[in-house]
Amino acid sequence: MPCEICPRLKNAERVVFENKTWIVSLSPDQGYLGRCFVMLKRHCGALSELTPSDWADFTEVVNRLEPALKKAFGATMFNWGCLMNNAYKEQNPQSHIHWHFRPRYSKKVEFCGLVFEDPNFAHHYDSKYKKEVSAENLEKISEKIKSNL
Amino acid sequence: MPCEICPRLKNAERVVFENKTWIVSLSPDQGYLGRCFVMLKRHCGALSELTPSDWADFTEVVNRLEPALKKAFGATMFNWGCLMNNAYKEQNPQSHIHWHFRPRYSKKVEFCGLVFEDPNFAHHYDSKYKKEVSAENLEKISEKIKSNL
Repeated sequence: MPCEICPRLKNAERVVFENKTWIVSLSPDQGYLGRCFVMLKRHCGALSELTPSDWADFTEVVNRLEPALKKAFGATMFNWGCLMNNAYKEQNPQSHIHWHFRPRYSKKVEFCGLVFEDPNFAHHYDSKYKKEVSAENLEKISEKIKSNL
Repeated sequence: MPCEICPRLKNAERVVFENKTWIVSLSPDQGYLGRCFVMLKRHCGALSELTPSDWADFTEVVNRLEPALKKAFGATMFNWGCLMNNAYKEQNPQSHIHWHFRPRYSKKVEFCGLVFEDPNFAHHYDSKYKKEVSAENLEKISEKIKSNL
């Protein structure tokens, strides 16, 4: 089974930010409004293999994204996670570093005619809590984040 | 409601590693063998408020812990998360940066007469999956990690 992330780096969709090391792509699931994947631009499988420069560039991602989501949608706080469990379903795991970024909201947010709620705010995110959004609205969410970066 | 983390920094228990910025404390829950909390040594509420030096020191934590857990217990891979949801249960949230570090295991591990399993390996960790361990065995786990750092 090849790496799941490498193909997503080519022609990455809904890119809201990138630097020389990381690319930030808006998730098609917007259960948590502004949810993004932060993918390392090269194939590398464990955080302890990152270089100081990779971490400095990751810091830039954090420092740009958190304020942007506050300004764009009034996000209250943020959940960050680097898990990479999926890759280990395979015999020969090809893990590829990526972060899950979930903005969390103490109040509901209305945007592009939709209402986004965070029913388990102040609790662990619910991996099963999803919200499908049309391609057009994903584009609007992406543009709103970019205009606040 | 005061900060939950600040009091835990004083006389921190089961410290497996620390540097000038972070302190790594073995969790009393060992559902995932070697589970630790990585706590910032000062009160600061969001990752985007960390300095480059804080991040460099966090990198040191990652680079020390991951290989140590592989050597100590044969951990397969690692889940890292910075969530901080609990603090937001309060009206005046006092979030304090801390990371959840969960080693994950493709095989069961026997240590100090106990068997540690990871029944949902290659899937999201289960927040409800816990394993209570005696103070004596927590100390043995802690010593084993320290001797492999």
